[in-house]
Amino acid sequence: GILERLDAGEIVIGDGGFVFALEKRGYVKAGPWTPEATVEHPEAVRQLHREFLRAGSNVLQTFTFYASEDKLENRDNYVAEKISCQKVNEAACDIAREVANEGDALVAGGVSQTPSYLSCKDKTEVKAAFRKQLEVFMKKNVDFLIAEYFEHVEEAVWAVEVLKESGKPVAATMCIGPEGDMHGVSPGQCAVQLVKAGASIVGVNCHFDPETSLETVKLMKEGLQAAKLKAHLMSQPLAFHTPDCGKQGFIDLPEFPFGLEPRILTRWDIQKYARKAYDLGIRFIGGCCGFEPYHIRAIAEELAPERGFLPEASEKHGSWGDNLSMHTKPWVRARARKEYWENLKPASGRPYCPSMSKPDGWGVTKGAKELMQQKEATTEQQLKELFQKQKI
Amino acid sequence: GILERLDAGEIVIGDGGFVFALEKRGYVKAGPWTPEATVEHPEAVRQLHREFLRAGSNVLQTFTFYASEDKLENRDNYVAEKISCQKVNEAACDIAREVANEGDALVAGGVSQTPSYLSCKDKTEVKAAFRKQLEVFMKKNVDFLIAEYFEHVEEAVWAVEVLKESGKPVAATMCIGPEGDMHGVSPGQCAVQLVKAGASIVGVNCHFDPETSLETVKLMKEGLQAAKLKAHLMSQPLAFHTPDCGKQGFIDLPEFPFGLEPRILTRWDIQKYARKAYDLGIRFIGGCCGFEPYHIRAIAEELAPERGFLPEASEKHGSWGDNLSMHTKPWVRARARKEYWENLKPASGRPYCPSMSKPDGWGVTKGAKELMQQKEATTEQQLKELFQKQKI
Amino acid sequence: GILERLDAGEIVIGDGGFVFALEKRGYVKAGPWTPEATVEHPEAVRQLHREFLRAGSNVLQTFTFYASEDKLENRDNYVAEKISCQKVNEAACDIAREVANEGDALVAGGVSQTPSYLSCKDKTEVKAAFRKQLEVFMKKNVDFLIAEYFEHVEEAVWAVEVLKESGKPVAATMCIGPEGDMHGVSPGQCAVQLVKAGASIVGVNCHFDPETSLETVKLMKEGLQAAKLKAHLMSQPLAFHTPDCGKQGFIDLPEFPFGLEPRILTRWDIQKYARKAYDLGIRFIGGCCGFEPYHIRAIAEELAPERGFLPEASEKHGSWGDNLSMHTKPWVRARARKEYWENLKPASGRPYCPSMSKPDGWGVTKGAKELMQQKEATTEQQLKELFQKQKI
Amino acid sequence: GILERLDAGEIVIGDGGFVFALEKRGYVKAGPWTPEATVEHPEAVRQLHREFLRAGSNVLQTFTFYASEDKLENRDNYVAEKISCQKVNEAACDIAREVANEGDALVAGGVSQTPSYLSCKDKTEVKAAFRKQLEVFMKKNVDFLIAEYFEHVEEAVWAVEVLKESGKPVAATMCIGPEGDMHGVSPGQCAVQLVKAGASIVGVNCHFDPETSLETVKLMKEGLQAAKLKAHLMSQPLAFHTPDCGKQGFIDLPEFPFGLEPRILTRWDIQKYARKAYDLGIRFIGGCCGFEPYHIRAIAEELAPERGFLPEASEKHGSWGDNLSMHTKPWVRARARKEYWENLKPASGRPYCPSMSKPDGWGVTKGAKELMQQKEATTEQQLKELFQKQKI
Repeated sequence: GILERLDAGEIVIGDGGFVFALEKRGYVKAGPWTPEATVEHPEAVRQLHREFLRAGSNVLQTFTFYASEDKLENRDNYVAEKISCQKVNEAACDIAREVANEGDALVAGGVSQTPSYLSCKDKTEVKAAFRKQLEVFMKKNVDFLIAEYFEHVEEAVWAVEVLKESGKPVAATMCIGPEGDMHGVSPGQCAVQLVKAGASIVGVNCHFDPETSLETVKLMKEGLQAAKLKAHLMSQPLAFHTPDCGKQGFIDLPEFPFGLEPRILTRWDIQKYARKAYDLGIRFIGGCCGFEPYHIRAIAEELAPERGFLPEASEKHGSWGDNLSMHTKPWVRARARKEYWENLKPASGRPYCPSMSKPDGWGVTKGAKELMQQKEATTEQQLKELFQKQKI
Repeated sequence: GILERLDAGEIVIGDGGFVFALEKRGYVKAGPWTPEATVEHPEAVRQLHREFLRAGSNVLQTFTFYASEDKLENRDNYVAEKISCQKVNEAACDIAREVANEGDALVAGGVSQTPSYLSCKDKTEVKAAFRKQLEVFMKKNVDFLIAEYFEHVEEAVWAVEVLKESGKPVAATMCIGPEGDMHGVSPGQCAVQLVKAGASIVGVNCHFDPETSLETVKLMKEGLQAAKLKAHLMSQPLAFHTPDCGKQGFIDLPEFPFGLEPRILTRWDIQKYARKAYDLGIRFIGGCCGFEPYHIRAIAEELAPERGFLPEASEKHGSWGDNLSMHTKPWVRARARKEYWENLKPASGRPYCPSMSKPDGWGVTKGAKELMQQKEATTEQQLKELFQKQKI
Repeated sequence: GILERLDAGEIVIGDGGFVFALEKRGYVKAGPWTPEATVEHPEAVRQLHREFLRAGSNVLQTFTFYASEDKLENRDNYVAEKISCQKVNEAACDIAREVANEGDALVAGGVSQTPSYLSCKDKTEVKAAFRKQLEVFMKKNVDFLIAEYFEHVEEAVWAVEVLKESGKPVAATMCIGPEGDMHGVSPGQCAVQLVKAGASIVGVNCHFDPETSLETVKLMKEGLQAAKLKAHLMSQPLAFHTPDCGKQGFIDLPEFPFGLEPRILTRWDIQKYARKAYDLGIRFIGGCCGFEPYHIRAIAEELAPERGFLPEASEKHGSWGDNLSMHTKPWVRARARKEYWENLKPASGRPYCPSMSKPDGWGVTKGAKELMQQKEATTEQQLKELFQKQKI
Repeated sequence: GILERLDAGEIVIGDGGFVFALEKRGYVKAGPWTPEATVEHPEAVRQLHREFLRAGSNVLQTFTFYASEDKLENRDNYVAEKISCQKVNEAACDIAREVANEGDALVAGGVSQTPSYLSCKDKTEVKAAFRKQLEVFMKKNVDFLIAEYFEHVEEAVWAVEVLKESGKPVAATMCIGPEGDMHGVSPGQCAVQLVKAGASIVGVNCHFDPETSLETVKLMKEGLQAAKLKAHLMSQPLAFHTPDCGKQGFIDLPEFPFGLEPRILTRWDIQKYARKAYDLGIRFIGGCCGFEPYHIRAIAEELAPERGFLPEASEKHGSWGDNLSMHTKPWVRARARKEYWENLKPASGRPYCPSMSKPDGWGVTKGAKELMQQKEATTEQQLKELFQKQKI
């Protein structure tokens, strides 16, 4: 079990980001980001699980992100008609289990934030949405549960409470940065509330780069220590550099979601992340949007000295580029060493682009705030004008 | 057949880069870059073919890059012992055909430059290497043949001559830029020689970004016009921005091959490429290293007005981001339009990195040249010193 | 007098940076940064004063930076032999007064931090150094006094105490950022101590860009409010962008002092600074290193609506570029408007350079710390090795 | 005389840019760029001459840029009323001579392109404008003459022809890049025509950075060699990096003229320029817009080994930063060496800015071309719309 491994001091490697990887492969639609591919194209989902397993993942998360009934129904009529919440979640469990059995990985059933919470905030209704997914996870007997991608600790606590009904271990991660959740609850306080609600593992996922995410987990750790609570720590950040993010993370960056390429982390960036996460005491180390299989392999390779073994996919990868040592060009051979890749400052090849962006919605004008509060439809022209005015 | 389609004025969409995509998925080793995955992990190769097909590829190239016997033998003993040239090529043909039959794509058997040419330059021996692969392609009855990734037009001509023995249509692409091949033969002259040798389709692949590659194809086109020769044009460039490349392409960039992330093209960059290629008269439009399925889809979407249809994978993609029009945040909704993505200058999130690099080997010192010519083993320290001196 | 003006709510515009401007003009040596030019080349000092006056400065500071006896003696033997502390200070007063009389500017006598403080910390000795300069200022009857460029509040307090002996108004600025002085005293506490010691005007100068400096003055303001103390606020920041500075300011940046050009603020950057300073309640607004006459003019132009008049030098400057409205090229004429220059993101023309640097001494290694503490001579090679190791 | 020096193989160092330096000091108006300061503020012009002399200039150019009568009259009524062409030119000669006598510098009278040429193209009238200035130069007995800042070789030839009437040596520089003059005459042909018209020294000034300008002079040199003509070579480029310029130089860059700061060359950039110019055979080496006194000093310091002496202002400057060797911080001491400054890639401190810009007027639309040809007044809104459309 997950807790036995963590309690024993093992490093547990998570998997990477499904919606972004499968969007690029052609199976997930950006915008809704829903996982109907488990039913429509199981072979594509299966292959991605397999690649993460091969790269070193010890946990395969069911591809059930945004798979609550309210999300599937509300956001995309096509899906609601043909593909039920139950079918999507069941297929996700079956695929994850099938691949997990090819190695020794655990299967984790996952729930994430719901439209119900944002629109009505009725605890019973929101909990019902989680419970519907949990029923599938219990029927399919996943190994443990993860509540992830919550911007509001209140909803995350509700999710943990529901998942705890199962008796299985529960992990909980929020998509927040050092400034805390969207109601202003600090990371330390978030962690405390999640642990009190029953989570054995807490941390962050998505929305921010590794640097920022580790800063947030550090604040969670300090909050738990101050409250004399114990929990395992977990991090599953973006594989995008986001030093210029505001409080709400990468969604507000002008590049989201179709221009993020220049921000993608290299494998060497990931190795720094893995080492830093380990040094901070985090033992459940994975990734979220942007993490491809080779990024997960980089975690496994960085921590191979501690773990004593390399992942299967390292048979196709020389440590720190040493597979370049046979290259015909001497200057490429000269790249076959750790010092080279550690110190490289990679160029973008984009001299007309800046290195940082101002997030949208940053310093939002009064007019824009009102529009948002009213949730009124606005014409493109109105929006354009508003945002042109407030851009700096 | 391929020529029927091109002669009829159809746009033919190629596929993307296998070695880079499968390296990230954990099945190809950077350095050797050989395709033994066709035997070792056929499911991974099959899935990638399928994604390209779904994204709009009309041609599936057999994954036989660097699959000549001399390459497989010389570069990696493990492969040579267990995996023969014949098996790798046969498996590649079978997988490509299997997936092609799921749609209406053509299968193209491919050969690429050989170590034999570089080391001995004996025409008979080099041609024998190509012929060995061709035998498999004939047995497996591919639809046409591609000679690709040649730095020397002499070797490319030999390849075309061998492939023409089959009676099947032959395409030939060189990995050169506007400065021409490694012996200084201009793109125009290269094109002329390839067509005279029997190629019906000529162009470039790999080594340079779309901007540079299209400049090169333009020179080829002008060379053919001057020589009053006719051929179809083809481009399969990198999906990396490389304005700072030297004559030998992206291999000399300090970021090659493990730090190229900030250079990856967005889907919008690809749409510009597709349009520009089309306007230049190119009708076989695909990609090479760095091209993922969503890049190929971007070609198909840009040229959908001309072709009259969208690829299957566009069911998961809104044109110009229109799937963002339902987002809860007004500033994200404001991104659901062509003008936004066309004009976005995406930031790298890397303020400590430059936007361009000096290629290694650029302005190579006399000492380094001698070392290279002598092909002597040099210590890392010697190389380091040499290259530190010549960096500006 | 200065206090009458400030008490009446007037905006007082300071002058710019003498050592940097005169270094570029050939009269000050970088490294020692001492002001012997007042004796050696009075015409050059006079001309610079005149340009600042013409640009709108209401205060001309005597060019007595680093003109304490211990500094002049210790750092440059040539100066000590031929040019005494008294002569340098007297000449500085004479020149400033001569130019001030050409307009209606005030003359401020200035003292700055001393080598004595750093080496021995004996209060009596340090105060004696300030007193020696003060005697000249009294003899020459300057209008008020400024203690500036202090990294340690303790020394700044000593300086204020000495200057207060004169009975003249005293301003005090520290070269610190939001993290406070080199002993860790917060900006708020620094301000409180300086006001208690007798300063009527407090703020910051040098070491950081306007953005950072205003943040620091804001903390000073809050500190004074919390302590229920009153004082006028003053800011004289760098005219270099330094978002990447560490606690000790721009000296640690790799570009200091001979590669700072790409960081120089435009006149439009200065206008933003002036507006922001004004909005924060600062009424003594000037500049330090990097501020050239046209930067001071930009302060005066931005605040012309509040002050009711433009400086003399504005006869040679159109507001917001309106002097371009007669250009022969339409696209240059199109630059003759506020919106254009406010929104311009100026390119560096340096694609091989990054946008930010890691400060040296950042994360200093134990070895380097020991070297520094021992104040031992080290060979260039040792230093080079040390710093190469610690650069990230 | 100038020719004796050059014929003897001496290196002659020019001066820097007056209009840009004096604009920042508050005495020249950007837009008109006319030199009425010679009459209005002679002390400011005198001081700048003195700084260049001190920095190593062997030639002081009279500050008579744009001082032809048609320019002074047409562009700025204020000037035309109170300040005559004759007075401005006479004062310029007097000031230059006065300062030249403080050292051993030569005085060069200068003429530049005229509005008459652009508007009517009548040879007699244009020549009359030059002759009017020449009369002053003869009366004041300058040492030689420079025709500079010509975009059209035709007009430059006319200027040389007029200046040759004096019997004094004539130098001629054009503000063109490698693409040649505005009518498409190549740099080589321009040089040939200028020498045939009587110029003893030819080259380029202004509009492009040193890199580009030296490329242009190289083409001029090759043109002269091909025509078997002999002349001395001269370069006076910008002190701004402009790799992104179009054919018409830095005026089209969006940063011109009030946002060029990030492009300013460091002294080390200048040393590279001086060395490269020398290696190319150029012996009259100076600068134009952006060149401050310390830039000229950098030329003199780089070429001190060849010349055998340092300029006066080097008493305030350690070679390659060696005046930092006494700094209290070891990492600043570590900067006191050539290797450090030669290899520094200076950061801009501007992460939201790009490194290159697209020039305005680049890919000018048909509409804009028509507007320009018609020389019609256009509203700001029209222009804005036009240029927003054509910006990429």
